[in-house]
Amino acid sequence: MPYRQQIDGCFAETIGGGGLPQADFDTLCRPAAAALSAIGDDVTAGQLPAFGVVGDDDDLAPLEELAARLRGEFKRLVVLGTGGSSLGGRALAALADAPPLCFLDNLDADALDAVLADSAGTAFLAISKSGGTVDTLSQLLACLQAVRAAAGEEDLSRRFVLISEPGDNPFRQLAGRYKLPLLDHDHDIGGRYSVLSLVGLLPALVAGLDARAVRAGAREALEQALSAARGDDPAASAPAAGAALVVGLGRRGRTSSVLMPYASRLAGFAEWYCQLWAESLGKQGLGTTPLRALGPLDQHSQLQLYLDGPADKMFTLIGTQSRGRGAAIDPSTLAGQHDYLAGRSIGDVVAASFTGTSETLASHGRPLRTLHLETLDEHALGALFMHFMLETVVAARLYEVNPFDQPAVEDSKIRARRMLGAMSTEDAPAKDPPE
Amino acid sequence: MPYRQQIDGCFAETIGGGGLPQADFDTLCRPAAAALSAIGDDVTAGQLPAFGVVGDDDDLAPLEELAARLRGEFKRLVVLGTGGSSLGGRALAALADAPPLCFLDNLDADALDAVLADSAGTAFLAISKSGGTVDTLSQLLACLQAVRAAAGEEDLSRRFVLISEPGDNPFRQLAGRYKLPLLDHDHDIGGRYSVLSLVGLLPALVAGLDARAVRAGAREALEQALSAARGDDPAASAPAAGAALVVGLGRRGRTSSVLMPYASRLAGFAEWYCQLWAESLGKQGLGTTPLRALGPLDQHSQLQLYLDGPADKMFTLIGTQSRGRGAAIDPSTLAGQHDYLAGRSIGDVVAASFTGTSETLASHGRPLRTLHLETLDEHALGALFMHFMLETVVAARLYEVNPFDQPAVEDSKIRARRMLGAMSTEDAPAKDPPE
Repeated sequence: MPYRQQIDGCFAETIGGGGLPQADFDTLCRPAAAALSAIGDDVTAGQLPAFGVVGDDDDLAPLEELAARLRGEFKRLVVLGTGGSSLGGRALAALADAPPLCFLDNLDADALDAVLADSAGTAFLAISKSGGTVDTLSQLLACLQAVRAAAGEEDLSRRFVLISEPGDNPFRQLAGRYKLPLLDHDHDIGGRYSVLSLVGLLPALVAGLDARAVRAGAREALEQALSAARGDDPAASAPAAGAALVVGLGRRGRTSSVLMPYASRLAGFAEWYCQLWAESLGKQGLGTTPLRALGPLDQHSQLQLYLDGPADKMFTLIGTQSRGRGAAIDPSTLAGQHDYLAGRSIGDVVAASFTGTSETLASHGRPLRTLHLETLDEHALGALFMHFMLETVVAARLYEVNPFDQPAVEDSKIRARRMLGAMSTEDAPAKDPPE
Repeated sequence: MPYRQQIDGCFAETIGGGGLPQADFDTLCRPAAAALSAIGDDVTAGQLPAFGVVGDDDDLAPLEELAARLRGEFKRLVVLGTGGSSLGGRALAALADAPPLCFLDNLDADALDAVLADSAGTAFLAISKSGGTVDTLSQLLACLQAVRAAAGEEDLSRRFVLISEPGDNPFRQLAGRYKLPLLDHDHDIGGRYSVLSLVGLLPALVAGLDARAVRAGAREALEQALSAARGDDPAASAPAAGAALVVGLGRRGRTSSVLMPYASRLAGFAEWYCQLWAESLGKQGLGTTPLRALGPLDQHSQLQLYLDGPADKMFTLIGTQSRGRGAAIDPSTLAGQHDYLAGRSIGDVVAASFTGTSETLASHGRPLRTLHLETLDEHALGALFMHFMLETVVAARLYEVNPFDQPAVEDSKIRARRMLGAMSTEDAPAKDPPE
């Protein structure tokens, strides 16, 4: 398996009263494994394409071809998309060195202006499942008109690619009008579960990554998780055990869940996780609050709070094999001082920070699980995506909420659209105030 | 004032039972204002240089000169520093378009290797108050030996600048050995309160920003806050009112505090705030957990949780004058569809999202305050830094904790250093595994 989960540090028997009693865990782990097994049945029956998509790589060849064209013809791909349309691809692209990608996931006038000021050699990938997300739609319209003005309407079909679900929607209408290539977003794959579909994998391919390895890692994690969940020791199924822990600790007041990878390339992964967890479980007053952190950085920013603030958090640290990696400190630079650094590499210091923080969290009675990756690559990241998607859906079954909807957010979208419609151009502040 | 605080959305009288009763607020606001007034006395007496530093700009001329040299001689400045040594400078630098800066705030072998592989034309600013932070020290050593190997030892004094407090420490020893310019970090300014000192302002100057305007904005916010705190209406002092709200709502179960600016350039500001709040208040089981968010992006990622998950959060949204900013949607691009976007600018959509989310949070009984900036510039950001530094210290007075220490984190540092000392190079994984 591309990762190894250790959960001992979560138990009352290890860290004292702040941990989860082993018996509580066992009680939750059985239904968690049963839920996971049922999810596996749904996947087999074709009911959950977000997971089932890893079983068949036939869709990848045309994506590889398109990515090769975009890489060949353009110096940069700007990805327009927000939330689930961008977080997975962004997390994956971080594996590549200097990927030729720019993710405009936050709607921001300055950021879009900067892109449009330098749009020669740029292609655009716009992703919206509904085809009507106002952030992405307004970005797409602004980019279309800027490229049309600079390069002419005939250039649009070469420069733009759209992803949206079938049916009549603004993206489909624009694609028809301007003859833009449009790829299908599976109607049954929600945005935050779309990373293993073309939504995450097309940007990954443009970044030069191996999409087949991402899928292979995800497949391996899925098969291992299901097989263990159906076996004698449900705790051997990492996502079932993880869901049981988070839900069990949540009931004991650990209402926040910190994900803290120790690798800069996993910062985006933690953001992806935060959406997945928050939107899938934050319902009916339930769920826990996900917190993204980054090690060792947040040891210098958040650790005081983690150790001595409210005892309302559980921690998941992700470690990589960092020992021996990166520049090593030449003893001659030290001139006999700070000997503990002589010969140590940057990766050694990261490893020591990971271990030091793990031990300190435990000594303060803070529940801690760790995930260890042998190699930080496409295969491992695919497995991690699958792990947390499964853990989230299993946790939802334990909470008895629907992990696939997000009913509360429609209200703010309606209000924003109504306000836009009511805005008159005249009452906007002048862009160039009179002298 | 460069910003305006609105707090009506936090009160039970406005949003119902989930809000803070006005009477509770009034009861807290009086001691908050008194604490702020006492802080003002300390500042006047020279006891709190983190705040007092804004009163005298004599230190800026040599920083401006140094920044001009670095900008003239190098194409890029790499800032080595973590936590309070980097977050303030990074938040400021985001105001500039494409600043020639790279912040290596997370210790990471890949990220450092990438910098060292392209170090020609690069200068280094290493910041550590203690001069011994292992993350920054190991980065500095690796950079020193790489530049020495590539360009010779005589080049080091031109390429490196160090900031550290007076006294014998590793930074001072390295500066002596290699004849590196070393600037004094005030012993009495803690890292997370250092943004208005040279720690935040030297990077800002290298980014081409106006450090005097940052100080002027901070001064204006300080003077307004103190004057109002000493007047008849303590709630007119924005930081006193803010501290009373957060502490009061915290006692009513709002144990997390979400800071959500609606501008990509303020993403780093939210990270700076999270350290300030977490490290200053997370003590003795007290404090609230700060959450950084970014609008409109996190409407697509976290809003479901905010609205319908556990009712344990309060919200601070920061809005800028975004109306009319950025590209505007040409009706001809729409071809008669999606009329609500015709003529609207990207900034209009951001403004509508801000208002839509504000109204929706209120309608769900979620406590919300807003901060509005007239102009997002150095002056306004200086004022925001001062606002939250004051609010934090006032909250600490209400909690009766020391806002300036971080006692819990020493343990993990000691463990990490001990582990590094005990590591033998032999047991590290080989960097190039045998074929």
